[in-house]
Amino acid sequence: MASKQFKNIYLNDFVTLVGPLEKESHLKKYNLIMDDYYYGEKTFEQAEIKMQKSVIDQLLKQNSLKNADISLLVGGDLTNQIAITSYSAKNYNFPFLGLYSACATFVESLIVAATFVESGCKKVIGVTSSHNLTAEKQFRYPIEYGAPRPHTATFTTTGAISTLISKKESKLKIESATIGTPVDMGISDANNMGAVMAPAAASTLMLHLTELKRDINYYDLILTGDLGCVGAKILEDYLLTNYNIKMKKYLDAGCELFLNSQETYAGGSGPACLPLVFFNKILTTKKYKKILLIATGALHSVALVNQANPIPGIAHAISLEVL
Amino acid sequence: MASKQFKNIYLNDFVTLVGPLEKESHLKKYNLIMDDYYYGEKTFEQAEIKMQKSVIDQLLKQNSLKNADISLLVGGDLTNQIAITSYSAKNYNFPFLGLYSACATFVESLIVAATFVESGCKKVIGVTSSHNLTAEKQFRYPIEYGAPRPHTATFTTTGAISTLISKKESKLKIESATIGTPVDMGISDANNMGAVMAPAAASTLMLHLTELKRDINYYDLILTGDLGCVGAKILEDYLLTNYNIKMKKYLDAGCELFLNSQETYAGGSGPACLPLVFFNKILTTKKYKKILLIATGALHSVALVNQANPIPGIAHAISLEVL
Repeated sequence: MASKQFKNIYLNDFVTLVGPLEKESHLKKYNLIMDDYYYGEKTFEQAEIKMQKSVIDQLLKQNSLKNADISLLVGGDLTNQIAITSYSAKNYNFPFLGLYSACATFVESLIVAATFVESGCKKVIGVTSSHNLTAEKQFRYPIEYGAPRPHTATFTTTGAISTLISKKESKLKIESATIGTPVDMGISDANNMGAVMAPAAASTLMLHLTELKRDINYYDLILTGDLGCVGAKILEDYLLTNYNIKMKKYLDAGCELFLNSQETYAGGSGPACLPLVFFNKILTTKKYKKILLIATGALHSVALVNQANPIPGIAHAISLEVL
Repeated sequence: MASKQFKNIYLNDFVTLVGPLEKESHLKKYNLIMDDYYYGEKTFEQAEIKMQKSVIDQLLKQNSLKNADISLLVGGDLTNQIAITSYSAKNYNFPFLGLYSACATFVESLIVAATFVESGCKKVIGVTSSHNLTAEKQFRYPIEYGAPRPHTATFTTTGAISTLISKKESKLKIESATIGTPVDMGISDANNMGAVMAPAAASTLMLHLTELKRDINYYDLILTGDLGCVGAKILEDYLLTNYNIKMKKYLDAGCELFLNSQETYAGGSGPACLPLVFFNKILTTKKYKKILLIATGALHSVALVNQANPIPGIAHAISLEVL
């Protein structure tokens, strides 16, 4: 079984921070803003560390929590050796487990947090972030090079998110989850992550529905992220062709984030993309009760792509209920 | 509480693979050997992927397990985006959670595996590896450059390890664990990882003893790794000076692995180091019943070290009982 159901585990609170482009996007409401990519620091990496620190500090503050109240910090980011998360973690005295599922790291952090709460941890914080300029220079080119981008390329979201998970009852219940399997469809184009990840999203969705004996209409909304507009269309076609499933109540976070005028090609990506759209756009509508988040990740490594290996995708799903 | 006790969780079996230098070292007994650093592949990265695949395949084989019998694969490695583990994971149909704690990843994988077994997963595999030549070129220099190394430098171990964790009773019990906190002592020398990690090992050890109300003599052996001979001495001095604790039944895996004649300076390192020494040297002596493994990791990132940031260390502990 890749899926499990949780009893009495809740997402009590969250803090979101948005970057310069994201604050002008479709997002409705957020906690913190950074007006430029340096965020008062000397390097983009230091800026991203500060982003994570800001959302953790604010989460502690608005819940009147001290360092000693936190049993565990789990999280990760896109940088090599998840350095951003490690360096932000060292500001606190929290036990820390580093996680990595590329852009699916947010949902991995919720699954691991919920499981540790289930097994006795009292209060767990999940953290993740992405920063357009740390990610682009690491995975592709420094943007100062002005490399042309194809229409399939997505724009790495700049943002950070902290979440607080415990057994204390609150309005957002963590109901069940499905841990994904890496899926390799032979695609090696680092500018077409939607195509890499869509089959992984399909695999995890089908596993979730099958193992938990649910129909696709069980959910009021299925929100994938960050396939982007190209990848979302591939997922819809793939499910229709292979499983005869027509996605009706479906959105992709990558496609929902930016305005057309922001010229982000196929939309947003990065581990911050799905949680920003979920917390700052979907939840604010108050339209949905049962939501399945399917976070997608491209397990992209520059070293292995340069050796002409295809990129595997992965997707982790978590079912949240708005009470 | 950073510590937790487990009930009825066992490490049922393991497979180890050793590299060219490791097979000539102090290790007594191992399952698989690679005679050269390419292991029949074209690149070192492909060799390391094959190393992980070999230990997982062998674990499945010697336990007569099929792919579908495995509930979860957890693990990680030193390469950027833990690419080795992701690429070896895609050979199977296992749900997969990627982890990263640098050289402490082995114990992180045991803690996460044990917690998921406790919460209902039936059989979990943990995997980790390191390869001297993928690690050295990524973190320092390609060894072909012949860069001189100081006496504090350790030699990244080449090896891979798979473990099988479940509730089925067997001879090795996972008794308790302590999740570490990142510790930053201001050291930025990427050739002195022992000094980076020793304070983290001390912090986790003291937390473990305090929270579980145990005396240091509770254990028949405390095995750290991979501090190396320089780092192990720092840990001993640090504990004596700060806590008035004299380490009597203590070994460090980095210091126990290689022969003096192998000229590895301060000893072995890498996430494979501790498990190789534990499974292939310590366990074979049959001398110890209660063993505390403290895996240490340097949360080293080339990008952040190049920006003159110190390197934080982390250490995770797991208590194993030989029944």
